[in-house]
Amino acid sequence: MTTPNPISRFPVPELKDVPDDVRERILAVQEKAGFIPNVFLALSHRPEEFRAFFAYHDALMLKQTGSLTKADREMIVTATSAKNSCLYCVVAHGALLRIYAKNPLLADQVAINHHKADITPRQKAMLDFAIKVCLDSQSVGDEDYAALHRHGFDDEDIWDIAAITAFFGMSNRIANAVSMRPNDEFYAMAR
Amino acid sequence: MTTPNPISRFPVPELKDVPDDVRERILAVQEKAGFIPNVFLALSHRPEEFRAFFAYHDALMLKQTGSLTKADREMIVTATSAKNSCLYCVVAHGALLRIYAKNPLLADQVAINHHKADITPRQKAMLDFAIKVCLDSQSVGDEDYAALHRHGFDDEDIWDIAAITAFFGMSNRIANAVSMRPNDEFYAMAR
Amino acid sequence: MTTPNPISRFPVPELKDVPDDVRERILAVQEKAGFIPNVFLALSHRPEEFRAFFAYHDALMLKQTGSLTKADREMIVTATSAKNSCLYCVVAHGALLRIYAKNPLLADQVAINHHKADITPRQKAMLDFAIKVCLDSQSVGDEDYAALHRHGFDDEDIWDIAAITAFFGMSNRIANAVSMRPNDEFYAMAR
Amino acid sequence: MTTPNPISRFPVPELKDVPDDVRERILAVQEKAGFIPNVFLALSHRPEEFRAFFAYHDALMLKQTGSLTKADREMIVTATSAKNSCLYCVVAHGALLRIYAKNPLLADQVAINHHKADITPRQKAMLDFAIKVCLDSQSVGDEDYAALHRHGFDDEDIWDIAAITAFFGMSNRIANAVSMRPNDEFYAMAR
Amino acid sequence: MTTPNPISRFPVPELKDVPDDVRERILAVQEKAGFIPNVFLALSHRPEEFRAFFAYHDALMLKQTGSLTKADREMIVTATSAKNSCLYCVVAHGALLRIYAKNPLLADQVAINHHKADITPRQKAMLDFAIKVCLDSQSVGDEDYAALHRHGFDDEDIWDIAAITAFFGMSNRIANAVSMRPNDEFYAMAR
Amino acid sequence: MTTPNPISRFPVPELKDVPDDVRERILAVQEKAGFIPNVFLALSHRPEEFRAFFAYHDALMLKQTGSLTKADREMIVTATSAKNSCLYCVVAHGALLRIYAKNPLLADQVAINHHKADITPRQKAMLDFAIKVCLDSQSVGDEDYAALHRHGFDDEDIWDIAAITAFFGMSNRIANAVSMRPNDEFYAMAR
Repeated sequence: MTTPNPISRFPVPELKDVPDDVRERILAVQEKAGFIPNVFLALSHRPEEFRAFFAYHDALMLKQTGSLTKADREMIVTATSAKNSCLYCVVAHGALLRIYAKNPLLADQVAINHHKADITPRQKAMLDFAIKVCLDSQSVGDEDYAALHRHGFDDEDIWDIAAITAFFGMSNRIANAVSMRPNDEFYAMAR
Repeated sequence: MTTPNPISRFPVPELKDVPDDVRERILAVQEKAGFIPNVFLALSHRPEEFRAFFAYHDALMLKQTGSLTKADREMIVTATSAKNSCLYCVVAHGALLRIYAKNPLLADQVAINHHKADITPRQKAMLDFAIKVCLDSQSVGDEDYAALHRHGFDDEDIWDIAAITAFFGMSNRIANAVSMRPNDEFYAMAR
Repeated sequence: MTTPNPISRFPVPELKDVPDDVRERILAVQEKAGFIPNVFLALSHRPEEFRAFFAYHDALMLKQTGSLTKADREMIVTATSAKNSCLYCVVAHGALLRIYAKNPLLADQVAINHHKADITPRQKAMLDFAIKVCLDSQSVGDEDYAALHRHGFDDEDIWDIAAITAFFGMSNRIANAVSMRPNDEFYAMAR
Repeated sequence: MTTPNPISRFPVPELKDVPDDVRERILAVQEKAGFIPNVFLALSHRPEEFRAFFAYHDALMLKQTGSLTKADREMIVTATSAKNSCLYCVVAHGALLRIYAKNPLLADQVAINHHKADITPRQKAMLDFAIKVCLDSQSVGDEDYAALHRHGFDDEDIWDIAAITAFFGMSNRIANAVSMRPNDEFYAMAR
Repeated sequence: MTTPNPISRFPVPELKDVPDDVRERILAVQEKAGFIPNVFLALSHRPEEFRAFFAYHDALMLKQTGSLTKADREMIVTATSAKNSCLYCVVAHGALLRIYAKNPLLADQVAINHHKADITPRQKAMLDFAIKVCLDSQSVGDEDYAALHRHGFDDEDIWDIAAITAFFGMSNRIANAVSMRPNDEFYAMAR
Repeated sequence: MTTPNPISRFPVPELKDVPDDVRERILAVQEKAGFIPNVFLALSHRPEEFRAFFAYHDALMLKQTGSLTKADREMIVTATSAKNSCLYCVVAHGALLRIYAKNPLLADQVAINHHKADITPRQKAMLDFAIKVCLDSQSVGDEDYAALHRHGFDDEDIWDIAAITAFFGMSNRIANAVSMRPNDEFYAMAR
């Protein structure tokens, strides 16, 4: 590659030099997406953390139970990552949100101002809670649970919303600290 | 147990009902600590997340390389968890900080105001950076790396500081959202 | 049109019912852009304000003197409108930024985190100042002028940066207060 | 005049050197007020912007319809300009507020803490909304409109409050950026 | 008195009903000022606190040593009380500032934006420090002391600036909590 | 004493050199506590302020009337001093809170996150109000009084809560500005 824009402040190993399980995971995502999202390459610098990161990611984002759709999950990621000003996550997960929601406008809307987004009152309540967990988790309490129950979320859904927000809050901070660069491919995907 | 104070808003399974690997990890920590820290019980409600959480934790906190001491790591956790007002992490990791630093005052000092703590200029710079990653990660840049280099931290140390801060920022948000209660044992430990 | 999404909380007059000069301006932009940006329709509810708004807009954005390029101006609008969480302006002026800069990535970059954008140090200084005018104008002083001078901006350029930021800060607040909706066309333009 | 205090960081043209329409406007206000408010002189450095600024100002502040009194309008300007720490606008429009409200105390009260001002509940609601538009316009929504409706404001009044706040938010940022100095005459007027 | 505006949410005793020393202090200030500033009446509801409050006030504000002038002290009070949005203190101490500084403009300037006030660089440094003590005392450190030393303040002066700021921060919170009303007389005094 | 850690940035006089009444007060507290809390030594540098400070302190903290218990008062001090990041007051008054409440956990709980503390709804309302007075006193109003009345507090109790918060807000700022160091003895007391 001859790109002038590094994808991380840290060294990115060649695929042949990473542990087998890490390489297999990377090749699998490449096969599916058509390119390797830079988070895989940037984190492969630390294989132990790579494994834990994606295990956690999968537990939350590929979870088969609960009432959150894939679009709901990506919407939470996009909205809260914008509050943390994380370029990588807003661009990459905004693309996934457009794909899963089959809506080319939604990602920009929830990233910029979820109050003005074309979402349901239930999704609005979900994002209100996610943003509170993101920005002011110390104040989360009974009334937040009650507000979500009124929209049909059960306690396990609430755990999911909080955990997705918390996990990507971690991801946002790592991406900001190491200057993780989103792949150019994500920007225009599914628009 | 007859405690009137639940350790989580969510159901906590009995040990006999959790997957074997989860139970083994819990029994191991109980053997070492003399009690089971509530984070293990609270997260055992979600075994997949339990496994990823502790794998990530171990990758960062048990890492054998780099210049951060165990006390340094716990100091980062205590100081940034206080910024997130996370009762569980300040109390539990404050105890660990007292143990590793062999200093009964340090945990309260860095939790309340690290500017007034009995720490070295190098540790002060480390906490300044950790707190920036915690509260304003979007602004992290070259000058932050340079400031840490001047204190002898290399880039891998900086990744460690950022990743520990980010991981416990996740932990803080989950603990606040599920009302995770610190064990009473932590409060007076090593004072 | 049968769109279910109103472009403003307020009534939008039919073109035949607006004053001639307002209609002519609207038809001219429609001819050029191929559609009518909703800000023209939303503000045509108040013809006096429409005229002053676009006169001010043109004085700042079509100005032929000074060193700010058209891309620079739209970059200022996009970055500061994002700080004000204005969906209309980020989406509409982000499109213009992509067009003038001939760069499909830049708008999302400066909207989400200008510290991570593919811009020159001069543009970085320009946006740092614009964001200070946007968020903390009370503290603007000599050192801000000096920082911009060091990048080759003269005082008239500084007026331009400040005035563009200020004008769109007004626009952002009106758009947010009346729920002005960006045209669907803007989202994918020039990506 | 031999005042050592410049009224702007930028050159202020002599009256003979400004375009005729600009000079006429300035002479008219001088005739009415007995002196030339510095905003006219400072902005005459940019005649195009001068014209648009005052056209916009007049559209909002001299508007003959709607339920906002002249005192209400100046109260909005004074309260929100104080939030933006704009010396020029608080001092100049505070003077106008004292004149229109025939109340020598009101300007200082709403500038310092509108919660403690001698105003009606309707005016309190008006200022609460204006301050929200000033500081947090992204969150303006249905409940804000409903709150104002309960005090007898209609939607056109709400546009007026929002637009006045937005326009002077622009004015505040320009005045802060160019260090516009209020005329000494304003400070003691109508006390 | 038939004023419709209570001077406090709490009962204000008649002068004949307050302890002798409290009444004597009140009569002395009345003799000097020509009226009784409401803080004396409002606090006379709590004689013990009244005595301690004014003893503390006098220790700081009537102190004969150090390099702070009376105008400097009132400038600190006015600027920091404005940050705390305390109507009573800004209005009352703004009047005293105008008197001691023999400058009718200064109080409004430092209350609204001390960056634009007609003050010396030394006074600017003094207010910068006072505002830091007011809003972010946790971060005060060596560099703040050094900055003040460069302007000729010694350590005892720094204690004075900090203590005056701290004392009036207390006064501001009490005044806001009990809705203490400034006397009408203060507003126009020395303008 | 040979401690390497100064208790204040300022000179601390020897006991023999302070005025008699100051020394007597210091010896009395030493007799009761078994050691001299550093606030007495640090403030003895300024005897006038020392006297006023402790007179005010006693008026609020030793007051015999009203419904606030000693534990309630120390809880207010601990919670609000934590918001101001005052190491001295959180450590010293946290110790007193543990003693008066006969609860070794409470001080850390209210200092880190009072939402998660083992307190009654009445105490929760008390701390909510105290924290509002601490951080946003300008907005205190009727609804805050009403909320406290619903929990059985009368207006005099509300004055007490506000005044204790305000007084220790002063103490916090002085302690932070002079780097007042808590005695080592406080940290482990009553745990």
